[in-house]
Amino acid sequence: MRLTRYFLPVLKENPAEAQIVSHRYMLRAGMIKQQAAGIYSWLPLGLKVLRRIEQIVHEEQQKAGHIPLLMPTLQPADLWRESGRYDDYGQEMLRIRDRQDREMLYGPTNEEMITDIFRSHVTSYKELPLTLYHIQWKFRDEMRPRFGVMRGREFLMKDGYNFDVDKESAIHAYNRHMVSYLRTYERMGLTAIPMRAASGPIGGDNTHEFLVLASTGESEVFYDEAVTTLRLGGIDIDYHDREQVAGIVQKFTSFYARTDETHDPKAFEDVLEVHRKVGRGIEVGQIFYFGTKYSESMGATVTTADGRKVPVEMGSHGIGVSRLLGAIIEASHDDKGIIWPEGVTPFHAAIVNLKQGDSEADAACEAIYKGLQARGLDPLYDDRDARAGEKFATTDLIGLPWRITVGPRGLKNGVVELTSRRTGESEEMSPEAAIDRVAQIYAAHP
Amino acid sequence: MRLTRYFLPVLKENPAEAQIVSHRYMLRAGMIKQQAAGIYSWLPLGLKVLRRIEQIVHEEQQKAGHIPLLMPTLQPADLWRESGRYDDYGQEMLRIRDRQDREMLYGPTNEEMITDIFRSHVTSYKELPLTLYHIQWKFRDEMRPRFGVMRGREFLMKDGYNFDVDKESAIHAYNRHMVSYLRTYERMGLTAIPMRAASGPIGGDNTHEFLVLASTGESEVFYDEAVTTLRLGGIDIDYHDREQVAGIVQKFTSFYARTDETHDPKAFEDVLEVHRKVGRGIEVGQIFYFGTKYSESMGATVTTADGRKVPVEMGSHGIGVSRLLGAIIEASHDDKGIIWPEGVTPFHAAIVNLKQGDSEADAACEAIYKGLQARGLDPLYDDRDARAGEKFATTDLIGLPWRITVGPRGLKNGVVELTSRRTGESEEMSPEAAIDRVAQIYAAHP
Repeated sequence: MRLTRYFLPVLKENPAEAQIVSHRYMLRAGMIKQQAAGIYSWLPLGLKVLRRIEQIVHEEQQKAGHIPLLMPTLQPADLWRESGRYDDYGQEMLRIRDRQDREMLYGPTNEEMITDIFRSHVTSYKELPLTLYHIQWKFRDEMRPRFGVMRGREFLMKDGYNFDVDKESAIHAYNRHMVSYLRTYERMGLTAIPMRAASGPIGGDNTHEFLVLASTGESEVFYDEAVTTLRLGGIDIDYHDREQVAGIVQKFTSFYARTDETHDPKAFEDVLEVHRKVGRGIEVGQIFYFGTKYSESMGATVTTADGRKVPVEMGSHGIGVSRLLGAIIEASHDDKGIIWPEGVTPFHAAIVNLKQGDSEADAACEAIYKGLQARGLDPLYDDRDARAGEKFATTDLIGLPWRITVGPRGLKNGVVELTSRRTGESEEMSPEAAIDRVAQIYAAHP
Repeated sequence: MRLTRYFLPVLKENPAEAQIVSHRYMLRAGMIKQQAAGIYSWLPLGLKVLRRIEQIVHEEQQKAGHIPLLMPTLQPADLWRESGRYDDYGQEMLRIRDRQDREMLYGPTNEEMITDIFRSHVTSYKELPLTLYHIQWKFRDEMRPRFGVMRGREFLMKDGYNFDVDKESAIHAYNRHMVSYLRTYERMGLTAIPMRAASGPIGGDNTHEFLVLASTGESEVFYDEAVTTLRLGGIDIDYHDREQVAGIVQKFTSFYARTDETHDPKAFEDVLEVHRKVGRGIEVGQIFYFGTKYSESMGATVTTADGRKVPVEMGSHGIGVSRLLGAIIEASHDDKGIIWPEGVTPFHAAIVNLKQGDSEADAACEAIYKGLQARGLDPLYDDRDARAGEKFATTDLIGLPWRITVGPRGLKNGVVELTSRRTGESEEMSPEAAIDRVAQIYAAHP
C-alpha cells in the first residue's frame, strides 16, 4: 500500500480519554474511532490487525479439527428461557424488542443457540466427536466500558463448543482447546498462562483462563515464575492423540498459576519462594467443561453404541479476538509507539523514502515495494512529501517491525538501511539483500 | 475435508416453509438454519460459500483502490438525527435502548457514520479521492421476512462510500463502482444487469440497481435483450483511467434496462420489438451518487486547491453479500439441487468412494484427496460407509461442480470418472489426469 492512497489518520496529541497505553496508541495510530461508549469503528490499520488475529485463530482451530460456522448476532429470548439464563443474565444482556414486539437479545455468548443447532441435526454417537465454532460480534452492556477495545461493549469473540458422547472424550476436547489456544497465542508473540479459574455465568467446574502478564491487567495473578518460560515451540501436535495432548496440558498446568478468584494462599506457599510471583494479567481466553448443563435442560441427546439415549457432553471455549489487539500492545510497545510481533503486524515492512521526488530514490523505493510484493509480502510505502523525522515517527507509532530507509546518500554506495523496530538496530545492505532478509524473517512466521 | 469429520446436515424432505428454490435447497443442503423470523445461522457449508463471495467482493473492491474498514453493527441515534433520517427511516430501523437508556439502533446502512469518520479526520482536497467500504452485518426489521436469506432481517452487506472534491471526480467514483461490480458478479458466474433505479431513502438522483434475471425476482424488469449478452471478459481495467471506465459504463448502460419503478413505456417502444423483454429480477446491488446530501447536513467539508471550503461530494454503493447466495442458486440449479459456479463453490470437487473399506478404492481416494490439496484445491471426500446412490444424491444436492468417482471396477482398468455437475457428462481417465483436469479448470477461476 502507498501511504498517499491509504487512510491512516494518525494523531499527534495524546487523546485525553485514553487511560492505558494500548487505548492511547490505537487512537493515535488511527486504528479505531469511538462511535459510542464501548463501541468502535475499526479504521483500515486496526482492521488489518484484527483480520490477521482472526486468521491465526481460524487456522489453529481448523488444525485441531474444529469446524467453523456463523451464528447471527441477534437471538430470540425464548431460546434463553429454555436454559433459564434469560432471567439470570442480568443487565449486561442487551434486550431488544422488534417491530412485532418479539423479545430478542444481542448475543453475549452462544451456548443456547449452538445446543439448538445440535439437537436439530444430531442424534447418534456416530456423528461425534464434533466441535463447532464461530468468530462473531457479541454485545455485553458493560456498566463502565473503558480501556478502548479491552473492555468494549460490542466486541469480536471466537467461541467454540464441543459435543462428545462421554466425559473422557469431552475432557480430550477440553485439552485440545487448551493446546490449540497455547499455539494461537504463541503465534501472536504472546505468553498467555493458563490459570485455574472460576466459572461465572457459563457454568461448570473445570475451567481455565489464559492470562497475559501486564501491569494494566484487570486481574491480580499469583504464579510460579517457571510457568512463564514454557513454550510449545515448533513441536508437531497430533490432535487425535489423547496422550500427547493431555501431556502438554499436564506440563502447562503443573505449576501454580491462579487468579485472585481461585487463589489458595496455603498452596501458594509450596512454591519455591524465589519463584513466587504476584502480578496483574489480562484475560484473553477461557475454556470450560460443563458436561450436560445445557444438553439436559434443552434436550440435546444422542444414542450411544449400546443403544442408550444420553444427554451430550459439552464444553465451551472462547478467545477475545478484538481484546487481543489491546493485550498485544500492552505487552509490546515503547515510548514511541506500538511494536507489532511479526505474526500479527498490519504491514510486513515500512519503506521510507528520505527524498520523495528524487528520481533515484523514487525508483529504488518502487523496486523494493514491488520486490517485497513479489515475495508475497505486504509493505507500506511512505511516499508522502514529508520530512524524514515525520516519516520515522509514523512508522514507529504504528509499530511496523521492519523499516527499509532509502535515501540518495546511501544509494550512491548502493545501500539502503534495514532497521528493527524492536531493537532499534540498523544495518546497511543492498536493496536486494534487504528484500531477501525481510522475506526470510517472515518465512518463520507463516 | 472428509465428510465423516464434517458437519453437513442434509435434509431428505422438502421443508414446508420454503417457497422458493434457493431457500429450499439452502435448507436441504445444510447451509442455513433459521433461528428467528429472517435471522439465520450459517452452517459450515453455507458459511464457506458466504466467505468465497465476500472474498471476491474484497478483491474487486481493492483492485479498484477502495479501502476496507469496519464499522460496528450498533450506532447511536444522535448521529442519525444530524441527517434527519432517525425520524424518517420508519419501522424497518431496529431501535434499541441500552441499560443507561441511551437511544441506539442496529445499522441498516452507514452513510451517517462514515460521514462522521470522514469529518473527524479529513480536511483537505489533498487527501482525496477516498473510497472506504466495509462488509458488515446489517439489520432491517422487515414486516414480512421471507425467501430465506433473500429477504432476511439480519443480512451481510458490502457498503462503500466515496469522497471526492468535485462532481467530475465523484462521477468517476460512481463509474468505478459500476465497473468493479460488473466484474464482481461475472466472477460469481452471474449476469447482473445495471438498471436505472429510483433512489429511496438513501437520496440522490443518479442511481443504478444490478439485477439478476430470475422468475422468482421481486422486481418486474423491462430490457433490451442485447444487454444480457455484454461481458467484461478478461479485459485489463485501469481504474485510474476515467475514459476507459466511463466507456465501459456507457457500453453497459446504452441499452434500455429498467425496473418497474423507473420504466418508461414510451422509451421502451424504441427498442426493436424482437429484443423487447419483460421479466423478473433479483436486486443484488445498487450504486448512488448523491453529492452533498450528507456532507452538508453533517458538516463534512474540505478545502479546495484554491482555498475554498466546500462540502465533500459523496456516493454510496452496496452489494447484498448474503442475498447473493440466494440469487446464485435461483440462477443456477436443477431438480437435483444446486449447481455452484466454479468461482463460489464451497468445495472444488467431490471425491466419491463407491466401495468404502475396499483397500484399493480407499488408497486411490486418499491419493486423489491429497493430490488435489497439493494443487491448492479444497476437495470434499465422501468417505461415508453409504450406498453410491446416497453419495451421488448428496454431491448433486450440495452442488459441487466436479465429481471424481472411484470404484474397484474402474481401478482395475486404471481409471476413475470425472463428472460435470452442470452437464452431467462423465469421462474416464487416470487418477492423475483427473487431478490435472480439475486443477486446470480452477486455474481459470482464481
